[in-house]
Amino acid sequence: MTVEPTVTDGERIVVTYTAADASPELADAIRVEQTIEFPAEIAPQWIREQVVGRVEHLSERTIVISYDPRTVNGDLVQLLNLLWGNVSLFPGVRITDVVLPSVVTGWFRGPRFGIAGLRAAFDATERPLVTTALKPMGCTPEELAADAAVLATAGFDLIKDDHGLANQPWAPWRERVTRVAAAVQEAAHAAGTRSVYMPALNVPAGALVDAAHEAKAAGAGALLVLPGLVGLDAMRALADDDSLALPIMSHPSFLGSHVVSPDQGIDHGILLGLLLRLAGADISVFPNHGGRFSFTPQQCLDIRDRAAQPLGAIAPSWPSPGGGMSVERIPEMIEFYGRDVALLIGGALHRGDLATNARTMVEAVRAATA
Amino acid sequence: MTVEPTVTDGERIVVTYTAADASPELADAIRVEQTIEFPAEIAPQWIREQVVGRVEHLSERTIVISYDPRTVNGDLVQLLNLLWGNVSLFPGVRITDVVLPSVVTGWFRGPRFGIAGLRAAFDATERPLVTTALKPMGCTPEELAADAAVLATAGFDLIKDDHGLANQPWAPWRERVTRVAAAVQEAAHAAGTRSVYMPALNVPAGALVDAAHEAKAAGAGALLVLPGLVGLDAMRALADDDSLALPIMSHPSFLGSHVVSPDQGIDHGILLGLLLRLAGADISVFPNHGGRFSFTPQQCLDIRDRAAQPLGAIAPSWPSPGGGMSVERIPEMIEFYGRDVALLIGGALHRGDLATNARTMVEAVRAATA
Repeated sequence: MTVEPTVTDGERIVVTYTAADASPELADAIRVEQTIEFPAEIAPQWIREQVVGRVEHLSERTIVISYDPRTVNGDLVQLLNLLWGNVSLFPGVRITDVVLPSVVTGWFRGPRFGIAGLRAAFDATERPLVTTALKPMGCTPEELAADAAVLATAGFDLIKDDHGLANQPWAPWRERVTRVAAAVQEAAHAAGTRSVYMPALNVPAGALVDAAHEAKAAGAGALLVLPGLVGLDAMRALADDDSLALPIMSHPSFLGSHVVSPDQGIDHGILLGLLLRLAGADISVFPNHGGRFSFTPQQCLDIRDRAAQPLGAIAPSWPSPGGGMSVERIPEMIEFYGRDVALLIGGALHRGDLATNARTMVEAVRAATA
Repeated sequence: MTVEPTVTDGERIVVTYTAADASPELADAIRVEQTIEFPAEIAPQWIREQVVGRVEHLSERTIVISYDPRTVNGDLVQLLNLLWGNVSLFPGVRITDVVLPSVVTGWFRGPRFGIAGLRAAFDATERPLVTTALKPMGCTPEELAADAAVLATAGFDLIKDDHGLANQPWAPWRERVTRVAAAVQEAAHAAGTRSVYMPALNVPAGALVDAAHEAKAAGAGALLVLPGLVGLDAMRALADDDSLALPIMSHPSFLGSHVVSPDQGIDHGILLGLLLRLAGADISVFPNHGGRFSFTPQQCLDIRDRAAQPLGAIAPSWPSPGGGMSVERIPEMIEFYGRDVALLIGGALHRGDLATNARTMVEAVRAATA
């Protein structure tokens, strides 16, 4: 058969896998497993040369393999499969670097708004974004809407549903979204803020797109997506939908398994920074160091840096460290992450008076970046 | 507010988390994190009692928490989020048991065909199913179709695409599916076998449902789904689609991160047996012990057992151990798994003459279970 010439160097997808036993055998296993899954020695020579991954570098703990972009050919599902599909079943292997050539970044729009877009949307020229979550599960739509109105009055940029708010009997999805969206619009209008409501798209797969449109029609101004549960490509499709054109925040639910084991998985920055950005997240939520979870400061910085690194024409996204944060930590978090950060404080605002705490948080952010 | 009475014991979702440091503090962290994500001490009492998970048992290494099914209320996305959403970000915690009450199993159809349905479909009264994969990537649709015809002539029950066959230039999705489906139908008709073609739904999120229907219209008789990439609930939606009504095989691509670290994640049997079955997989592919991957014999048996355990009205599914298997291992695999197994041999059939090897495999399975 006739095939196009092999792509030249610098135009390949380059993946660094770290492994305790980075042998030539493991390198061969990975480059074959991620492509042809076939005994290499009986594959046609051109397939061995052009389709199978190529070992670019091998050291005691590191395997660098490059792949021809034609093995992906445009689809995010297959890009993720190429990077980590079957190797996810190998113990002791971790992706520690991914370099995407411009042909690959060109396939993806990435965040529709990104840093600059959301700065403009929320008139936040230099400050971090101020975000929070509606909770706890068990509240009625009326109760959540009342809290949302208080938060919109205080001037929070994004007021999201807790990601676990699905369609529970206490606050069914449609009723909740309708009431909270209206409450946020009304309170923001009255107070002169730009607050928007971001409902959780914790809905069945077949209802995802319709739910996003229904939320927008009800007045929601952004969308919370759970890519670990609905798939990164489903998030990308929502981000790419010109008839939606809403900011998207990704929540890391179910994604932790890929990152938390030090010797296995995908580096924090690669998954929660690079790949979620590629998949269209304007904002990527992850657990801040020192909160309820376990990420280290360096892992958090890696996410921030991967969300901002040059990536073809793809806009940078906002890191959003959360998970048990408090108002007191705001100056330290801004010092740590810089101003391109979406601060997320949820439950702590409910210790005492919500309205007072909400105002305090908004003022603390403005004061820290005045 | 008025709420329904708390569900009674025996009607709750019971999850066992194993952790090296199973303290009361960790137990409280999990039961709150998976539900209200809110400072428990300031939540209303009824929410603490009814919405937050309940610690049922605590030992040095084990935490058993039960959840009210109303925290899920029918949706698979939220069930998975309840079981493992944020806890996935806790290091050193693993789900080692899940018990679902009948109210929860009643929400799901599970496998449409299961063991009995596919035995009937393939006239396989007592024998294992015989399955294989079309490969390697780089082949043209004509080459794949020619191989598929050979395999259909030999009488393989299911001839699937390699899961990495997406929309690469060498064999674009539509052309491949159309040609291979026709080749399998023609060869099966000529040879008097019941072979069906199972294309890989390695396609963009928005194209998934249409691709399934297009494949069926082209003559495909089953579907290969990648739930680790498109989401378990997207697979469930395909399985539940009465206008498709095709057998579904799940491939474990990208799911490995959840299972391979011994101290973190979800037990092999829970994810690859129980949860994929709940999500509608008639057949669950996983790497057999002793192949290219690392599952232990016990982990493989756990998957088999979870695929068959009583689960309300939900049909049992087929375990499908693959990953570097060979014809020589067939008697041993049947001895190990029993006859309710879908044997999957791919690349090894291409060592030498495909037609000869294919006949040998079909005959070996029949001989081992005569």
